[in-house]
Amino acid sequence: MSAQPDPAPPELAALRRDIDALDAQLVDLLARRAAKVQEVVRLKKAAGLPVYHPAREEDLISQRREQAARAGLDPDHVEEIFRGILRRSRMGQTAHVAKTGVRPGAAVLIVGGGGRMGAYFGRWFSESGYAVRVLERDDWPRAADLCRGAALALVSVPIAATVEVIRRLGPHLPTDCVLADLTSVKAAPVAAMLAAHGGPVVGLHPLFGPTTASMDQQVVVASPGRDPAACRWVLDQLSAWGNIVLTLDAAEHDALMDLVQGVRHFATFAFGRFLAERGVDLGRTLEFSSPIYRLELGMIGRLFAQDAAMYGQIICASPQRLALLREYVESLRRSCDLLEREGPAAFEREFARVAAWFGPFCGQALRESSFLIEKLVERF
Amino acid sequence: MSAQPDPAPPELAALRRDIDALDAQLVDLLARRAAKVQEVVRLKKAAGLPVYHPAREEDLISQRREQAARAGLDPDHVEEIFRGILRRSRMGQTAHVAKTGVRPGAAVLIVGGGGRMGAYFGRWFSESGYAVRVLERDDWPRAADLCRGAALALVSVPIAATVEVIRRLGPHLPTDCVLADLTSVKAAPVAAMLAAHGGPVVGLHPLFGPTTASMDQQVVVASPGRDPAACRWVLDQLSAWGNIVLTLDAAEHDALMDLVQGVRHFATFAFGRFLAERGVDLGRTLEFSSPIYRLELGMIGRLFAQDAAMYGQIICASPQRLALLREYVESLRRSCDLLEREGPAAFEREFARVAAWFGPFCGQALRESSFLIEKLVERF
Repeated sequence: MSAQPDPAPPELAALRRDIDALDAQLVDLLARRAAKVQEVVRLKKAAGLPVYHPAREEDLISQRREQAARAGLDPDHVEEIFRGILRRSRMGQTAHVAKTGVRPGAAVLIVGGGGRMGAYFGRWFSESGYAVRVLERDDWPRAADLCRGAALALVSVPIAATVEVIRRLGPHLPTDCVLADLTSVKAAPVAAMLAAHGGPVVGLHPLFGPTTASMDQQVVVASPGRDPAACRWVLDQLSAWGNIVLTLDAAEHDALMDLVQGVRHFATFAFGRFLAERGVDLGRTLEFSSPIYRLELGMIGRLFAQDAAMYGQIICASPQRLALLREYVESLRRSCDLLEREGPAAFEREFARVAAWFGPFCGQALRESSFLIEKLVERF
Repeated sequence: MSAQPDPAPPELAALRRDIDALDAQLVDLLARRAAKVQEVVRLKKAAGLPVYHPAREEDLISQRREQAARAGLDPDHVEEIFRGILRRSRMGQTAHVAKTGVRPGAAVLIVGGGGRMGAYFGRWFSESGYAVRVLERDDWPRAADLCRGAALALVSVPIAATVEVIRRLGPHLPTDCVLADLTSVKAAPVAAMLAAHGGPVVGLHPLFGPTTASMDQQVVVASPGRDPAACRWVLDQLSAWGNIVLTLDAAEHDALMDLVQGVRHFATFAFGRFLAERGVDLGRTLEFSSPIYRLELGMIGRLFAQDAAMYGQIICASPQRLALLREYVESLRRSCDLLEREGPAAFEREFARVAAWFGPFCGQALRESSFLIEKLVERF
């Protein structure tokens, strides 16, 4: 893939100049388009209209596809380009809207606001015009003052400390204050909030970390506690920031997360530990592998670029979760036994059984991941 | 995210018409650009010049980034758009070149040409002007005829059969015929080819499957056997199709692949089997998860959309490979023991050790996978 010598006959140089000129016009059009979109946002904000309009977006894509087909271009390719343009334009629009809060001026108390997640939410509330206060470990003597008149108290402390902090906080809260938490387990914190506070309660679990630049399309799970109507504005604020808010009972949430977070993060961690134990030459494996391996190894490396304490808490969140990890390891041991004993024939038999269980998801997963692998090859 | 009612004041409608007009110009420019690129390809082919020119591509991207910055656009965004345009244009160019082979007219014998991988390579050779012959299980009585005058014999049969097929094929081959195989292990096939044939020998391992539409930037590992100069044209043909051909000693190849293919595919298979055993509600977990979970679950589902026999052979390729799977499971068991015994503190300690071992790869992996997650959110 090194640069080739290039004698460049004169016609070639002329064609390249033509292409450069066309490309310059493309960039110019993109800039003019971005300016028009800014005008649309200003106008919509003034008229109090929602800025994101999915139906308009799909219309626009359909028109561009038809036009592409008429011009002899691949409609998929043109759609891909316009989806990229629209996404960036949507991100710019969301950032604008976030500035106006659902209840600007209301007092929001972040308990554990010095932590990374607490600071992250504090910044979003603050930028949307809320009066943000922070209660940290050493601030308990001032707790009564900090809680006075608060419309929302948001608990963002390590899992192990959550229940105790809620117990301590409860008595200071105004009756109409919404009490919420950001813990990645929900049953214990929601029960503790209901016990400690007589007013509105909702458990929140944002499925993203404090390094996420935009909340656009990020999922927040909301586990109902008490008085959903009074909690509504908090969920509306999350939606206004672009979050997708999904309601899920605390017990079902925890059972799902034992698998989705517990087992999965453990598997990733333990694979990384295995590679380190063996002193595998990572660079060498990347050199001689397919893009899909790069993607899979990247999913492992990614974990270790993040917060050890947060993952430790998630993986060791409860005795049930640790018991499920054990079952996972036992299941792997049985798979290994089977292959040792019966070889490829047993593998094929089990493979067919699992593939049937997965059903249509397999084909969909193959298409989606192939799309992403193409993106990876494209970029690197 | 349902469509919102839209009163659409007249100024908004006018702005939308402006945006539609700009978008139409964008599509028109893309079509004119594609036409110019076709002219470049015709000219380059006539002059015998290589069509893909990485240095020219990087220059072009740099210029567009500078222009974007001057126009007040995000240079990353504009780079992304142009990388997409260039990639498609490159794919079109490669497809053109593939039609002309490095040694058009030469006879290529595909042993196992009825299998999916054999048929895939047969099609590529055939489309590039080679005289392709196929030797299948029932064709051994005609082996001498099929081998006569062959410039290349390419063995594409299941791993377990490879060595025996090579042994049987060897005596029929012309002395100057290149003997190659496509097996995903290399030491045993290369040794068998050297023993069975006195002429040029090279072991090949394409790191992609027969469902891959384009060979562009796909890796093929080449393990040298005998007379590399005489084998050269085969590797040149792979490069002409867009493959990246990397040379690696057969023994080192196998040691790397024990991990890159054996352990990794086993881990994916065994995780899928665990999910099926527990009867997890996949749809429910997808509904309440982050895009990264969708990506990870997709990596598992993807395996089960593919060929069971091929994966079974890869995972059970050798006794060393099965022994490594056992070590992997044992390592996971130790990680599980550690968490049960010592909890989050032990996790954090081990996490730090592994993160240090991974080094700068973690940050890079986080950036790359975040880019892909954005793509996933964008598309679905």
